[in-house]
Amino acid sequence: MIQGRTWIFKNKPTIISSSAVGGPFEAQGPLAHDFDLLHGDLWIGQDSFEKAEKKLQEDACEQAIHKADLQKEDIQFFLSGDLMNQVISSSFTARTLGIPFLGIFGACSTSMEGLALGSLLIDGGYAKRVLAATSSHNAAAEKQYRYPTEYGSQKPPTAQWTVTGAGAVVIADEGTGLKVTAATIGRVIDMGISDPFNMGAAMAPAAVDTIQTHFRDLHLSASDYDLVVTGDLGRVGFQTANDLLEKQGLRFPKGRFYDCGLMIYNLDEQPVLSGGSGAGCSACVTFGHIFNRMRKGELRKILVVATGALLSPISYQQKESIPCIAHAVAIESEEGA
Amino acid sequence: MIQGRTWIFKNKPTIISSSAVGGPFEAQGPLAHDFDLLHGDLWIGQDSFEKAEKKLQEDACEQAIHKADLQKEDIQFFLSGDLMNQVISSSFTARTLGIPFLGIFGACSTSMEGLALGSLLIDGGYAKRVLAATSSHNAAAEKQYRYPTEYGSQKPPTAQWTVTGAGAVVIADEGTGLKVTAATIGRVIDMGISDPFNMGAAMAPAAVDTIQTHFRDLHLSASDYDLVVTGDLGRVGFQTANDLLEKQGLRFPKGRFYDCGLMIYNLDEQPVLSGGSGAGCSACVTFGHIFNRMRKGELRKILVVATGALLSPISYQQKESIPCIAHAVAIESEEGA
Repeated sequence: MIQGRTWIFKNKPTIISSSAVGGPFEAQGPLAHDFDLLHGDLWIGQDSFEKAEKKLQEDACEQAIHKADLQKEDIQFFLSGDLMNQVISSSFTARTLGIPFLGIFGACSTSMEGLALGSLLIDGGYAKRVLAATSSHNAAAEKQYRYPTEYGSQKPPTAQWTVTGAGAVVIADEGTGLKVTAATIGRVIDMGISDPFNMGAAMAPAAVDTIQTHFRDLHLSASDYDLVVTGDLGRVGFQTANDLLEKQGLRFPKGRFYDCGLMIYNLDEQPVLSGGSGAGCSACVTFGHIFNRMRKGELRKILVVATGALLSPISYQQKESIPCIAHAVAIESEEGA
Repeated sequence: MIQGRTWIFKNKPTIISSSAVGGPFEAQGPLAHDFDLLHGDLWIGQDSFEKAEKKLQEDACEQAIHKADLQKEDIQFFLSGDLMNQVISSSFTARTLGIPFLGIFGACSTSMEGLALGSLLIDGGYAKRVLAATSSHNAAAEKQYRYPTEYGSQKPPTAQWTVTGAGAVVIADEGTGLKVTAATIGRVIDMGISDPFNMGAAMAPAAVDTIQTHFRDLHLSASDYDLVVTGDLGRVGFQTANDLLEKQGLRFPKGRFYDCGLMIYNLDEQPVLSGGSGAGCSACVTFGHIFNRMRKGELRKILVVATGALLSPISYQQKESIPCIAHAVAIESEEGA
């Protein structure tokens, strides 16, 4: 059913498995132990960064299917998207898997767009098992959006570091696991920021809009979640989001509001400037680290608010500002169901 | 509910309005009278072809909302995707509309991915009104995928002509209009063809796979539809699809199987080589011409099988073959509901 912009999943679709796969830079971060697989170099045995990203996503899907004790033939639909032009990392992974495929695009919000739509398919009885995934690759993204990393071009401190990583979930209509209870779909918010080296600030108002809408639609108060986590706002964007939420009267209890882009790296030691970003950021942090914490009983109810900057190099070159979006998904551990 | 790879919509979501917007080349074609709006030049009052495509999609959305006698505030979700990098035509249209947005990507199959998912949202009670759209622009696509048209580079006769056009539908849980009864989601099929100037041949096996699956899932025979129409296979691909279907024993009654890419232009007079293509092709032909024929009572039950080639210039340059997909949606006129 629907309330405002929020889908409420009465049948509480179950995340029967999840996976996170990363690269060498993620292996140096504080969440290394939450990855199922960490690759030692950016090439991942491939001869291009684009193919390396595809391999990351294939790995994540394989891990999630294996951990659910299933074969790919057991999955009815595969929902995926990524940052590469024409979402090739996802389309080519869909070719490898052979599972009926629905391509999606929400830039770095894709993790939650996939989890929201996949959960809806299960909740409505349109599938018994769905695989949702996304990925990003630092060098592939730099090459496509900015400059090849080999140029060594400099960046301002507001810039973020694209995560080399992929995450996947298997959602099912039965079994044990975390439960998806609701999802709020974002609308495009554009406050006129056009600097692609400050996407956190551009995305913050979209995150705030979706968070406020979610709490309003479901009549929730700020203390109803153990954790509300944004996708990849980084230091600058997260501070902006905090400020905006406070102004609107939504103040989360201490330690209950955080950002995936601030969690995946050692911000004081790794040269990631404002923090992590990329479609793989919220996917790896959520489907790996945070879900593990939920399974251990450290968190019971969470809201993941993945943010996406829907620009392209062409739109930036044509002096357009950056349209942003955020999709939120509420997840509970089984005891809380 | 689901049967195989096919969603069956018990509540028969209603297409309460549809629109088609085209460019100057489409205005010279045989379906000109089925467009709601035809622009006289490729620039559409904008200073770039990318912005022109966004304008096309905005026009189509505006027309569909207006024809449904609604305001954009009455629509709960907007589903859209296109061929541009990072689907900017759709994201920027979503910014203009301000409607909660789900970005999708299926290349030229996007029209039916959007109609399928939009209908599912309505059928399952997750929305009361959904807008689904897609677009393509000849010069924007040529510039991004091949060469700027100003170069005048030559093409082989197997190549297709990207439609400058956009189509949109408003789907609702009540009202009068065509009914969406079922949708079959495609899987990626790749027969090893890597020639981007022969995408019809690359896509034909995907169309055949989805058609066969649809007929098998619903236990239908070849004469159950008044028209089965593929997205944009063009002359070469459509012949291949015919041959493959005959080999598999699926032979449609004369005149009941056709291709949108063969309908939108005067193939003997306009220099479109193998026929029309692009995400706007199946959208304009279906949401304009074919839906008009259904409303006039000339067709009662149809199946639209939109095909998509999920390549990118990078995947082609890296010698990858072309992964293809086809999504099918079954539509009935109200008397047949």
